[in-house]
Amino acid sequence: MYGAGDVRMETVPDARIIEPTDALVAVTRACICGSDLWPYKTMEHSETGRLMGHEFVGVVEAVGADVRSIKPGDLVVAPFAFSDGTCVFCLEGLHTSCIHGGFFGSDEVGGAQAEAVRVPLADGTLVVLPVGKDDALMPSLLTLSDVMGTGHHAAVDAKVGPGKSVAVVGDGAVGLCGVIAARRLGAGQIILLGRHPDRIALARSFGATDIVTERGDEAVERVRELTHGFGAHSVLECVGLKQSTLTALSIARPGGAVGRVGVPQDDSIPASQPTFYDNITIAGGPAPVRAYVGELLPDVLEGKIEPGRVFDRVTNLDGVPDGYRAMNERKSIKVVIKL
Amino acid sequence: MYGAGDVRMETVPDARIIEPTDALVAVTRACICGSDLWPYKTMEHSETGRLMGHEFVGVVEAVGADVRSIKPGDLVVAPFAFSDGTCVFCLEGLHTSCIHGGFFGSDEVGGAQAEAVRVPLADGTLVVLPVGKDDALMPSLLTLSDVMGTGHHAAVDAKVGPGKSVAVVGDGAVGLCGVIAARRLGAGQIILLGRHPDRIALARSFGATDIVTERGDEAVERVRELTHGFGAHSVLECVGLKQSTLTALSIARPGGAVGRVGVPQDDSIPASQPTFYDNITIAGGPAPVRAYVGELLPDVLEGKIEPGRVFDRVTNLDGVPDGYRAMNERKSIKVVIKL
Repeated sequence: MYGAGDVRMETVPDARIIEPTDALVAVTRACICGSDLWPYKTMEHSETGRLMGHEFVGVVEAVGADVRSIKPGDLVVAPFAFSDGTCVFCLEGLHTSCIHGGFFGSDEVGGAQAEAVRVPLADGTLVVLPVGKDDALMPSLLTLSDVMGTGHHAAVDAKVGPGKSVAVVGDGAVGLCGVIAARRLGAGQIILLGRHPDRIALARSFGATDIVTERGDEAVERVRELTHGFGAHSVLECVGLKQSTLTALSIARPGGAVGRVGVPQDDSIPASQPTFYDNITIAGGPAPVRAYVGELLPDVLEGKIEPGRVFDRVTNLDGVPDGYRAMNERKSIKVVIKL
Repeated sequence: MYGAGDVRMETVPDARIIEPTDALVAVTRACICGSDLWPYKTMEHSETGRLMGHEFVGVVEAVGADVRSIKPGDLVVAPFAFSDGTCVFCLEGLHTSCIHGGFFGSDEVGGAQAEAVRVPLADGTLVVLPVGKDDALMPSLLTLSDVMGTGHHAAVDAKVGPGKSVAVVGDGAVGLCGVIAARRLGAGQIILLGRHPDRIALARSFGATDIVTERGDEAVERVRELTHGFGAHSVLECVGLKQSTLTALSIARPGGAVGRVGVPQDDSIPASQPTFYDNITIAGGPAPVRAYVGELLPDVLEGKIEPGRVFDRVTNLDGVPDGYRAMNERKSIKVVIKL
């Protein structure tokens, strides 16, 4: 990406093993993330550009001398952050704060919207998938690299549980996966705040029980009507704007929790006082999706959840610039890149 | 209170039973709260004044026709909020959000810095104390009406637990009770951020293991030094200012939690982005102290905790204006009013 709206597919130096803990992975599926749209909207022009992409499934081509649990030929899924799996934060399940970790889609390790990726700390980062590389479950397996784990993180941090009322702010891929996660965790009522008919239909099929198409104060009013006047026990903030955050905080019930996974675009959280007086918990952040694979993968393999349905467009590497455009214009929920 | 710095003891209409669920309580001990200092610093002049005080122990003089569990002659402690004990929020332990509840120190029910108080919803609100009205434990029992329960709430919301590192921002009565609560919940390290020698000495005797007298960035740096560079698992925000909140959020470890009980003086919470990237939980609000009496009262009665030591000055009703002055000038930590 060379600036807002300027994505180009170019030949860059080949990814290769640098550290003995690295793996070299040939990408078979990657995708474009809602979070990639923030720089797509706002990035200043750069002469050198920025390497993009942090979600992928691929085949291991080579491993460094110290890699033990991953071998060439393995089909693997990678979380959007790499992590050693052994530091104090990884052991607590917060792999995104790994002391030796970092993020794909950076100059340091390159991007995943590419033919191949260097994966640092391969033993801690990669998860071997027990299927073939063109398995029908591939779209859903790919979501374990980010959006399904991120929706799950929002739900966990919003304390979703059996019988609770849940509201999901945002009808993007993460919000839709948040609906799946809420249903999976036993929510009694799942309210999606969104207005795109195709996304609403998908949300309903994922388990949303109510749809709120209003915005701002009207949306708050509508959610309260749907929740005995109290607001929702659990709110998943899957956008990251100041307005969506304010809406999320305003529809939480006293004593409720907001799990925020939309990357915040503002440096303060609104509504400090009402949130305080209602004892509302604000939690969330980059999802430690690596921690969640063990819990979510079996459900994907058994077909209990189908997060891959958030992909509504398939392209190849040359089609990536068009994919960004389609997602930015909200003509596509999420684009999968097939290699 | 007629305005900033203007507290007067005046004769007002006698408190009396109005609703059949009321009790009339003759106050034996009351106190001045750190939160009373916010209007003491900023309140605009009012011709009619505002009734003050929300912490008290007293003897029941009369009860309404529908009161069942409280009877005349009972010595009782009241939480700073009254609540029915039966609504959905009370049953969840969030008595400060009681559907039929409210707060003492208001025009509706009067203030507790007085000879007597009307207590609405007496069955849900009051707790009978199994001691005499001049028992030596009285100061500690009085703290169950607010500051001890509030410090405990901060600790609970900051997820204090065995072996964890805890930082307490604020050396007022609530912060000091936060130290007691953290110790009681098994914290392994308790860092107090404060700079008043008498308060530091008290904090140490309550269980603080480290004292940070620096402020701002230097305080953040110092706490990191004390916590392996990571920050504290649990941070108790017991002030409510923007700067103290920023400090609290900045000294929390990735994946940690901040329990805020200082009444926020600003309408936004700072550091949305760093807090997000570190997956820090922000929780807290007015403490449902009624919910905590059952847990804390036995420890007070057995002498396991001595929160009453935060009182360092005793006065009578006529001395209340001087008590405000002493607390505002930080010459007193907390003033008890003995009737």
